[in-house]
Amino acid sequence: MVDGERLWKRLSELAEIGKREEGGVARFSFTPEERAAKNLVASYMEEANLAVREDAAGNLSGRREGRDPDAPAVLIGSHVDSVSNGGDFDGPLGVLGGIEVLQTIDEEGVQTDRPVEVVAFTDEEGARFSLGMIGSRALTGMLSREDLRHEDRDGVPIEQAMRDAGLDPEKVGDAARSPASLAAYLELHIEQGKVLEGEGLPVGVVTGIAGPVWLRLSFSGEAGHAGTTPMGSRRDALAAAAEVMGIVEEEAASTGSTVGTVGQIEVRPGGINIIPGGVELSLDLRDIDEAVRDRAEGRIRERAEEACGRRGIGLSFGELQRLPPAPCSEEIRASIAAACEREGIRPYALPSGAGHDGMHVAELCPMGMIFVRSKDGISHNPKEWSSREDCETGCKILYLTVLDLAGQT
Amino acid sequence: MVDGERLWKRLSELAEIGKREEGGVARFSFTPEERAAKNLVASYMEEANLAVREDAAGNLSGRREGRDPDAPAVLIGSHVDSVSNGGDFDGPLGVLGGIEVLQTIDEEGVQTDRPVEVVAFTDEEGARFSLGMIGSRALTGMLSREDLRHEDRDGVPIEQAMRDAGLDPEKVGDAARSPASLAAYLELHIEQGKVLEGEGLPVGVVTGIAGPVWLRLSFSGEAGHAGTTPMGSRRDALAAAAEVMGIVEEEAASTGSTVGTVGQIEVRPGGINIIPGGVELSLDLRDIDEAVRDRAEGRIRERAEEACGRRGIGLSFGELQRLPPAPCSEEIRASIAAACEREGIRPYALPSGAGHDGMHVAELCPMGMIFVRSKDGISHNPKEWSSREDCETGCKILYLTVLDLAGQT
Repeated sequence: MVDGERLWKRLSELAEIGKREEGGVARFSFTPEERAAKNLVASYMEEANLAVREDAAGNLSGRREGRDPDAPAVLIGSHVDSVSNGGDFDGPLGVLGGIEVLQTIDEEGVQTDRPVEVVAFTDEEGARFSLGMIGSRALTGMLSREDLRHEDRDGVPIEQAMRDAGLDPEKVGDAARSPASLAAYLELHIEQGKVLEGEGLPVGVVTGIAGPVWLRLSFSGEAGHAGTTPMGSRRDALAAAAEVMGIVEEEAASTGSTVGTVGQIEVRPGGINIIPGGVELSLDLRDIDEAVRDRAEGRIRERAEEACGRRGIGLSFGELQRLPPAPCSEEIRASIAAACEREGIRPYALPSGAGHDGMHVAELCPMGMIFVRSKDGISHNPKEWSSREDCETGCKILYLTVLDLAGQT
Repeated sequence: MVDGERLWKRLSELAEIGKREEGGVARFSFTPEERAAKNLVASYMEEANLAVREDAAGNLSGRREGRDPDAPAVLIGSHVDSVSNGGDFDGPLGVLGGIEVLQTIDEEGVQTDRPVEVVAFTDEEGARFSLGMIGSRALTGMLSREDLRHEDRDGVPIEQAMRDAGLDPEKVGDAARSPASLAAYLELHIEQGKVLEGEGLPVGVVTGIAGPVWLRLSFSGEAGHAGTTPMGSRRDALAAAAEVMGIVEEEAASTGSTVGTVGQIEVRPGGINIIPGGVELSLDLRDIDEAVRDRAEGRIRERAEEACGRRGIGLSFGELQRLPPAPCSEEIRASIAAACEREGIRPYALPSGAGHDGMHVAELCPMGMIFVRSKDGISHNPKEWSSREDCETGCKILYLTVLDLAGQT
């Protein structure tokens, strides 16, 4: 049941593509590196006797028909693009794990009722155009012409990059799949956190993908001389921002599930002896329960406004992004948990704080994810690491779940 | 008693030198602009029948002998250099006010016992070399060869800039004055704060010049994915820094006199969806009572270390500057207060949070300062403003104080 050695060898081979001299990999969408990665993946799909095709958005898929070719397919997916200084597992594990599952099915001569397909989505990371999940958006038919105008750092819009890669942006609608054509979506992915490591477990059952709200908070106070303005006469924008950061931490923690992060902060005028007159900070709030997240956000806004009002500081909120969480299908979670139990692993449920293509595919069909333990929780970094054994275990769980969902009469 | 019209006219004339097209003045030390300003000031000194000289550090002085030419002199001082986008009063008011006092004494034929001297110190602001009070340091003999190696943005050290301006850095020691040669130092300066405006008073009696401690705090935590790291598993360097900023505010305010300011903050890596792994921030702490300031600093350090220890965050303190406060002479304060009463102004005592040349001159002789009301407390800005009437009132108080300290037998 699945060839861990072969999976590991393919992970290593794929890791050679886009390798940077200074360490890490860089495989941006619609570049020669991404093309080379997809070509290698297509060759593995052929070794697995899959029917290989690439759709209008550049999504590369390999399909094995079921007993009933008209039945909705079980889709396994992930991506082969990377961030600018990425590791070897985020994305590749899901694509190569899916191929390994299908090659095993082929080698064992198993006949499933439903077709099974594995897909490498175009540009999940968003590292090139600051718009991620391009391929999975296209699959749902929701990738707009507006989206295709996002530009990279050199001012090249997605539509131009597509043309340069031999794709026709006018036809991107052709990549859309109907809900009727899909029975389930499955993704095997590294956790990118430390929860499984802390639990001593190789794999976990994902409960859902948290929906992020990204806000920008602008504080306006009054700049002044640090020496000549008594504490009681100040309207210090940074002191107000510090109080609000404390509120974010407190309100997120009090829910038990929401995470709240201030990752960016800018202070004006920024002199060592000048009271800050203005501050801008970012806020990333996530939860797999939208109501819990939105209540935490409401409390943060309310308390931040109270603090700023008390301090004579102007406060405004800008919204950069607001995505709903995507819960995983109860049925798929149960199937994954059963597979874990069969392999003697305690089924452990955990949310995905990071976004994945499944957020979009969930609009078409039930979605489920299997997480594999990450060493030290490190990701988006050359130090990203999951052991050979854990990758093989994750692939086994995927295999058992696929067989269950695809059916064997 | 003093010609307010003449003082105002000279303030306006001096403000034309170094005027920038975009507004504000820029008169950096050892530049043609500063030279032109000193030349104009020297011409006013000559109009006041003063003996004009420039010392080895470029300090420009005008002296009027007393009955006893060997008696220690009453020195009036300030500066004519400016910050990069400065106003018309910070510095010039003290120099031109001092000349106005001496010209009035000359015109009225008053004979003082002690000599009276007015000096325009070289580079008080520190805008060019990030080393301020160059001229007053030289006066105390404490300007070292090390100090002269401070470079401007173009990599020109002070010693080179001095040579280019016709001064010999080897001879800077010649600018030193003996304590025996000085009876008192007086400075007329704008408040650069809003205290007098709030009190409805044109002038105030300075109690002392606060001593600044400048620290750099470095927080080291652990960067991580904003979505995949639960609140309880974080070592967020910015969340720790926010708590410490709250502590700074609280401890400074609790003393009633200390001011504490975080004016700069930098966050690494600075991604909107990445938990900050490192933060650096600046801390400016001042008080005119050194013991109060140092106790506040001790409490801040102790509580910051407790907070960081609890959060698993590394914290280190770097010291950029530590100057003792300079208290004003009780005798001079009493003399200024008596002058205020004579002019029908309630004597109001207030500290100087900003640094001034008097901090250094106080090492040689008793020091006192007169503050003039600043509109909206704005300074180091083209909007810096004190009314003609307030400037004249400040100059009158200076005149009466000089006559008292210089003696008339």
